[in-house]
Amino acid sequence: MSITPIYLKPIGIIHSCFKQKFGIPRQSRLAPAATAELVLLPPYNRAEAVKGLEQFSHIWISFIFHQIQGDDWLPTIRPPRLGGKQRLGVFATRSTHRPNPLGLSAVKLEEICFQGSEICLKLSGVDFLDKTPVVDIKPYLPYADIITDATYGYADQPFDDQSPHKLPILFTADVQQFCTNYQAQTGRALAQLIQQTLTQDPRPAYLRNKPVSKNEQPRYHGISLWDLNIRWYYSTAGIVVDDIQFINTNNV
Amino acid sequence: MSITPIYLKPIGIIHSCFKQKFGIPRQSRLAPAATAELVLLPPYNRAEAVKGLEQFSHIWISFIFHQIQGDDWLPTIRPPRLGGKQRLGVFATRSTHRPNPLGLSAVKLEEICFQGSEICLKLSGVDFLDKTPVVDIKPYLPYADIITDATYGYADQPFDDQSPHKLPILFTADVQQFCTNYQAQTGRALAQLIQQTLTQDPRPAYLRNKPVSKNEQPRYHGISLWDLNIRWYYSTAGIVVDDIQFINTNNV
Repeated sequence: MSITPIYLKPIGIIHSCFKQKFGIPRQSRLAPAATAELVLLPPYNRAEAVKGLEQFSHIWISFIFHQIQGDDWLPTIRPPRLGGKQRLGVFATRSTHRPNPLGLSAVKLEEICFQGSEICLKLSGVDFLDKTPVVDIKPYLPYADIITDATYGYADQPFDDQSPHKLPILFTADVQQFCTNYQAQTGRALAQLIQQTLTQDPRPAYLRNKPVSKNEQPRYHGISLWDLNIRWYYSTAGIVVDDIQFINTNNV
Repeated sequence: MSITPIYLKPIGIIHSCFKQKFGIPRQSRLAPAATAELVLLPPYNRAEAVKGLEQFSHIWISFIFHQIQGDDWLPTIRPPRLGGKQRLGVFATRSTHRPNPLGLSAVKLEEICFQGSEICLKLSGVDFLDKTPVVDIKPYLPYADIITDATYGYADQPFDDQSPHKLPILFTADVQQFCTNYQAQTGRALAQLIQQTLTQDPRPAYLRNKPVSKNEQPRYHGISLWDLNIRWYYSTAGIVVDDIQFINTNNV
């Protein structure tokens, strides 16, 4: 019986729109506008190693939860999907706090780019934190990976229907204009990414389940997406995105 | 950019019906009668760690290809599915010869057994070699893992239609009787497992594509399943299973 430790080498690094853990979708493909680039590291940056991969619309990425401290696993977890109340075994969840910090996501492969010695896979629908180390890439095989008779318990809906994500997401005129300009300059679907990220309501469960009161001071929340800081607050009318700033600059 | 190596600890060990690489299905679930037990290793053998897992019909197992020598990866592979002729990039295949020897299989979770301090997951539809070290268990989440619009290239059929797997699989009377007795004693669906394993024709591609000639001496093949050695040959009538022996004994 082999119980010796196993040693893996990163084969690539992710450059993701998500610069911090807060706001990252709970699963891949919940936010199709979320994009990332997977750059292969030497000695794996060889065109032959990805030959034929372009035939697949989707790929599995095995990666490392690199912002998790080693050995801080717990046998049980409170999944956000259950409102943070119920405890489940770590192996019955996809929590990041696992005995081995291995992540697994099926994402869309948009394009493979070759620029000099750099090989870059353009991905969408990602749930990766920026700078995530990748340890494997495998094709998504529908005949093997689609299990039509799979049944499951607690995770029967991607979203919790009781949470206020049904609130409309509203942009101020300045924010809307910023998104239009930014997309024209970068090709990044910023407005969609904000919509898709906030639809999932990244706040902690105890806040999500609390209705917004009319007399309450607006409570601001923020996330970083690409090179931007995004700010919003919850009002009785909905989720209001009212400020976008370039990180380290001040020009909305 | 983190390119430091990553260490993983085995969290469990597989006891599988497949005692050698030859004959193992190319993907999980191709042989539903193929069963295995995943026994959790200390300190992960805690009932809380699998609490709620019984709600899922299928689970992902991340494991190590432990019979692969380290660092023998090749940038291209000839997948058996393509008749062993065409080369594809290693990341466009699920070959075992990868930069990191990580395997990934979705299998059926039949039962979770607790016996004293032992926690054992009974699995079916497996493609694991015996003694495989497991590094992670995650639930199969249909809403995240079923990608109905996934498209793919070379791997459009689980079986190669040109291969002789369409030949009937024939058992001698002794073999049939042995299977019946064995299943009565062990509960293991031996006849089905042999059928499902041979349907995939585990021979190398160059033999698979060669028709059987009438005057040829029968060429015997063998695999080990559970505690048994199984022998068969190819004839013009089909695949004939003509001998089963207990490993290290002689009593068919």
